[in-house]
Amino acid sequence: MQAPFGQDSFFFPPELSGQGVSWAGSGLLLPRGFRAAAAEAGLRGKRLDCALLVSDEPAESAGVFTRNLVKAAPVLLCLRRVGKFPFRALVVNSGVANACTGSEGLEAAERVAARIASLLACEPEQVLVASTGVIGQPLPVEKIERVLPQLWDSLGRERGLDFARAIMTTDTRPKEAAVWVELSGGAVAIGGVAKGAGMIHPQLATMLAFLTTDARVPARDLQTFLGEAVEPTFNSITVDGDSSTNDTVLLLANGASGVALQTDEDRRRFRAGLLAVCTSLARQIVADGEGATKRVIIRIDGAADPHQAQQVGKCIAQSLLVKTAIAGGDANWGRIVSAAGASGVVFDPERICLSLDGVTVFRMGRPVEVPPETENRIFAGPTVLIELWLGQGSASWTVYTCDLTEEYVRINAHYRS
Amino acid sequence: MQAPFGQDSFFFPPELSGQGVSWAGSGLLLPRGFRAAAAEAGLRGKRLDCALLVSDEPAESAGVFTRNLVKAAPVLLCLRRVGKFPFRALVVNSGVANACTGSEGLEAAERVAARIASLLACEPEQVLVASTGVIGQPLPVEKIERVLPQLWDSLGRERGLDFARAIMTTDTRPKEAAVWVELSGGAVAIGGVAKGAGMIHPQLATMLAFLTTDARVPARDLQTFLGEAVEPTFNSITVDGDSSTNDTVLLLANGASGVALQTDEDRRRFRAGLLAVCTSLARQIVADGEGATKRVIIRIDGAADPHQAQQVGKCIAQSLLVKTAIAGGDANWGRIVSAAGASGVVFDPERICLSLDGVTVFRMGRPVEVPPETENRIFAGPTVLIELWLGQGSASWTVYTCDLTEEYVRINAHYRS
Repeated sequence: MQAPFGQDSFFFPPELSGQGVSWAGSGLLLPRGFRAAAAEAGLRGKRLDCALLVSDEPAESAGVFTRNLVKAAPVLLCLRRVGKFPFRALVVNSGVANACTGSEGLEAAERVAARIASLLACEPEQVLVASTGVIGQPLPVEKIERVLPQLWDSLGRERGLDFARAIMTTDTRPKEAAVWVELSGGAVAIGGVAKGAGMIHPQLATMLAFLTTDARVPARDLQTFLGEAVEPTFNSITVDGDSSTNDTVLLLANGASGVALQTDEDRRRFRAGLLAVCTSLARQIVADGEGATKRVIIRIDGAADPHQAQQVGKCIAQSLLVKTAIAGGDANWGRIVSAAGASGVVFDPERICLSLDGVTVFRMGRPVEVPPETENRIFAGPTVLIELWLGQGSASWTVYTCDLTEEYVRINAHYRS
Repeated sequence: MQAPFGQDSFFFPPELSGQGVSWAGSGLLLPRGFRAAAAEAGLRGKRLDCALLVSDEPAESAGVFTRNLVKAAPVLLCLRRVGKFPFRALVVNSGVANACTGSEGLEAAERVAARIASLLACEPEQVLVASTGVIGQPLPVEKIERVLPQLWDSLGRERGLDFARAIMTTDTRPKEAAVWVELSGGAVAIGGVAKGAGMIHPQLATMLAFLTTDARVPARDLQTFLGEAVEPTFNSITVDGDSSTNDTVLLLANGASGVALQTDEDRRRFRAGLLAVCTSLARQIVADGEGATKRVIIRIDGAADPHQAQQVGKCIAQSLLVKTAIAGGDANWGRIVSAAGASGVVFDPERICLSLDGVTVFRMGRPVEVPPETENRIFAGPTVLIELWLGQGSASWTVYTCDLTEEYVRINAHYRS
């Protein structure tokens, strides 16, 4: 297992800090009043696979979940509780998704939550659960229950990175990010962890991500802020176009800083901080896509509206032919133009321009001759930039993905064995 | 390069013959009045890469083309001519797609057509062209012109298989099929060749397919019959979800048999014969998908309407996680249920049933325990059958695809080099 992503500007973009927002370093920060722990429950060999997050005081909660019709039991449980009951704790396991497990699966999820509620002396409805792993296997509740006391005893503010490690499946690195936000009443923190790797797709609140803040945010604002932040981040990444039964993004605000959002500038800064954390986590997910060797930024400009730009960007990001060409370091721009043309968005092919890693290869419907030595530099680095101008308007959108390698196939051909 | 697909019942399904329709063997049959030839033009090393099809008498024509907004020059040329001018000849090249080549590309396509027209002493509008290969490179017209006299001199009814070989790119086998249809006025033939391998996707008239018949069919019927036949065949297959700039299906009817469709039964038989040829070619395409080791039949039943069944089937067929699991011989049914749930079609997950290779693994929202020895047999053979019952109605649809292997990535990472 590799260390967390360092201070790479792809993951901690400088433009997202400043103006009252600053990156809090790469060590995971748990905001005041939150504590975490992780343990080996034996769900997937000898590794951290079970994690607990506790808020010392009741917290507001907001969530965005998979739009898959087939929702895992923990998602169904969260949908009933998020935003409706004051949050106290979250239990997450990897190895078993607890999806397609019928009413028994829901009972299992409720049982895990109830055990934590009794330790915390709170209502069961104040506990949330999340799972990730193989679909269709029953949740081994006894194994999880066995480690709950150990989790409970080892809770600490410095255990966030262990938490991030425990929710990993095929991820090679834990994913975490945190910012400080200066508000008029003082500084607040926003932290987050995520897991991704496969089954990552836009048009969904993709993968698992858990965000925490010690700011005091009214419940009605929390869901709005989360929805806003998810669209250009977790909803604008794709690894393989597959959408999970378990995708969950939670945002928890416990107010432990005592600092509220008092002014419009406070609200602006808080949203900027939340966007920064979500952007970092989303980019960490694509960079650690299953088998990925390159991270890909697809910037669509000149669209009639942002939705169309997003649609074109996603279509390019999902093209296996584009993704395999990038894996091979082949600047096969025809595949990119073709993918854009198949997006369903109407544009004039005679007006579009395409640049790859800053080199214009296609302009106004015609190829641009590129010297071989320049072409050889395209797609050679670890970060690939695709910029497509549609010539229809002034809207833009950015989508993130990774390349598709033989390693992706190897991982997924034998995931259960 | 391998031999054509033999008499395997996957490619020549017995249920599609009978009732006046019989398979015409695996050697390609060119109906009366059609002649073909193939040559090495040097577009892609030393191999057949340029082909000519001629109808001795003017023929009716129908076509279905890519819905990609970015259409290659030969597609634009065909769109102007098909069904509007009596057909005399078709020139096809592999190696260069003549797509994204601007007005020069269209001029190049027109020039090739004009040269054939002068040999045939017909109007240029009576000649169609098709191309397949790398996008964005100029069509080497001189190389094609250089072999046109040779093509012209070697035209013959027995050259259909060479024609099928010349249009291949990453295909490992030529694809051809033919039937005899007994009509009230006598027997007519329907033949066809196709190329596929990559950039194969539903919701499009996928890949290149050229169908010929010596039946006498009115122009207004020809397009109707072709549209009907394309939907459950070429529009119900997928290899990689990518859609091409060059996809073309042409149906040419020269009436050389002197036999017309006189009765409703004649029309029924002719349509059955056309469906048989298209089915065979479509299945040959997925079986020869880039890097494919298994062919996959996805049968959706119990849908509210056929369109919804098709949508669910396509979503499963496009899931990389499903396709890689099949490659690994892993009966990971959770991925199939999840892909169905992400299709956008509404059904009750508690009512669905799923069988894999005849073994029920999921029933009414719950896993079915399967003995390990039975589970090991699932996905072990060369043809994989996925049957999903949605519990919503009585409509059904069948989609065909192949598995996704590391070889697919290898082929596409370095396609141009």
